[in-house]
Amino acid sequence: MEIQYILELIGTFVFAISGALAVDEKDQDWFGAGFTGFVTAIGGGTLRDMLLGSYPLVWIGDVRFLYAIFAGIVFAAIFYKLLLRLRRTLSLFDTLGIALFTVVGTEKALSLGVDPVIAAIMGMFTAVMGGVIRDTLTNETPVIFQKEVYASACLAGAFMYIGLAHFDVQRTVAFLSSVILIIIIRLVAVKYNLSLPKFKRYN
Amino acid sequence: MEIQYILELIGTFVFAISGALAVDEKDQDWFGAGFTGFVTAIGGGTLRDMLLGSYPLVWIGDVRFLYAIFAGIVFAAIFYKLLLRLRRTLSLFDTLGIALFTVVGTEKALSLGVDPVIAAIMGMFTAVMGGVIRDTLTNETPVIFQKEVYASACLAGAFMYIGLAHFDVQRTVAFLSSVILIIIIRLVAVKYNLSLPKFKRYN
Amino acid sequence: MEIQYILELIGTFVFAISGALAVDEKDQDWFGAGFTGFVTAIGGGTLRDMLLGSYPLVWIGDVRFLYAIFAGIVFAAIFYKLLLRLRRTLSLFDTLGIALFTVVGTEKALSLGVDPVIAAIMGMFTAVMGGVIRDTLTNETPVIFQKEVYASACLAGAFMYIGLAHFDVQRTVAFLSSVILIIIIRLVAVKYNLSLPKFKRYN
Repeated sequence: MEIQYILELIGTFVFAISGALAVDEKDQDWFGAGFTGFVTAIGGGTLRDMLLGSYPLVWIGDVRFLYAIFAGIVFAAIFYKLLLRLRRTLSLFDTLGIALFTVVGTEKALSLGVDPVIAAIMGMFTAVMGGVIRDTLTNETPVIFQKEVYASACLAGAFMYIGLAHFDVQRTVAFLSSVILIIIIRLVAVKYNLSLPKFKRYN
Repeated sequence: MEIQYILELIGTFVFAISGALAVDEKDQDWFGAGFTGFVTAIGGGTLRDMLLGSYPLVWIGDVRFLYAIFAGIVFAAIFYKLLLRLRRTLSLFDTLGIALFTVVGTEKALSLGVDPVIAAIMGMFTAVMGGVIRDTLTNETPVIFQKEVYASACLAGAFMYIGLAHFDVQRTVAFLSSVILIIIIRLVAVKYNLSLPKFKRYN
Repeated sequence: MEIQYILELIGTFVFAISGALAVDEKDQDWFGAGFTGFVTAIGGGTLRDMLLGSYPLVWIGDVRFLYAIFAGIVFAAIFYKLLLRLRRTLSLFDTLGIALFTVVGTEKALSLGVDPVIAAIMGMFTAVMGGVIRDTLTNETPVIFQKEVYASACLAGAFMYIGLAHFDVQRTVAFLSSVILIIIIRLVAVKYNLSLPKFKRYN
């Protein structure tokens, strides 16, 4: 439990950085950047818990998540130039973040007793909806509508976790292999520029 | 109750189709179309239940609604060309969908003991907010801001249902006449291109 | 308590007016203007209570808030021309509105026992998120991303209230001085065109 908690805090920190940097071309002030980082970091988990009626929300019940966000925003401001040069590395962080959040979110939903398919959707929401809310607020096309295999990689990892949990595979093994599956799918999709088939294929 | 439940499932199926087809000009992949269909189908009822604090949400407590959505999305993909040629018929489906959802939503809100005016708003939200959330995510002007008498037709039907329920009219009669009122208002508004008076009439 | 309740109703009335007038250039019909006024007036408090899991929502439990909104929308329609000429005065109303809502929201969150930092965020959300939701629905850049010191003025007032409450300052004194602080920060920022430092200052 201890390790997962630390991973969640790190994921929150990483998402706050990527959110704060998302205002790059928008010439935002500190408040705008902080708000964007905050929404990106907590949006997905917040939506999940509000849909499941699970209160208190994680960041409201445990103020350390707020501090992780503040730290991420300050970190982003201090290392601004460096981070923009490291965009590629950053995208690795984002990949790690969505992988962690997917499995953590799936696990939480399962523990609340919902149907496994719902739990997988909740895991994917945990990972991607913070970015979607951020993009909606800043009038961008949401990331899930434009990136190579992104949310669907999370869904795949969530279903893998659910399958492994169903067959009573040891939790650490299930957790790690699902996280790794998501990371591999993402890396392969980005490297070979893969995307899902278009919907209107019959057109 | 059985019939209303089946109507709700059908309404969910129909909304998922119309949501998946909404990505037409956007050249979405399967995930994008599925996500849009999902949000359109469950958005309104989800917002209603979250505002009323009524948990579990319908589609989380009963996984058959998810299957209705999946079926709608697959149906939309298979009959893509046909459905686009049948846009006019489709719009009839949408009209039937909002009429059903309005009355179902109003009834649910009433059963939770809220003020009738609130219940009418909740009924209208059930019908139109899925489309509003979809339009917001895809950066479109929400449907309620642009269509001929749309959400207001739902409000009228909701108030009719509340009035009939108040006078103890038999439930099936109240249900059907409210649904029919919404459909008629919509059809007449579309046929004669009616719209509500502009707000800045005094300008 | 009586006075705060009346202030909240007045704040709701004022926000409904400013929301209904926000559709100015959009040539909305009555429904569009009403919907926009409604969302602006109840959005912030609704988000706060949904995040805190505090049910029933204020406007659902007490229908007088709905009447205040209806009154605001009708008022906006009748005095449309006059109000547009008085934009400057209107912006004073908005400033008064966000100041009141910030402190009322902070107080409510504190009374629910959350961490003071969370309570300050909730106070700021109460004041500004109605406008943010309105701007998102109408595809505008949210007000908090573009205005001179706006949400941050609310945050400052919320933290002042929390500090004063912490030191057991009399409630009326704490309430009034926090409201006044927000108003002064806003007026000074607008007059001297002040804004927060840009985030990418190291660029």
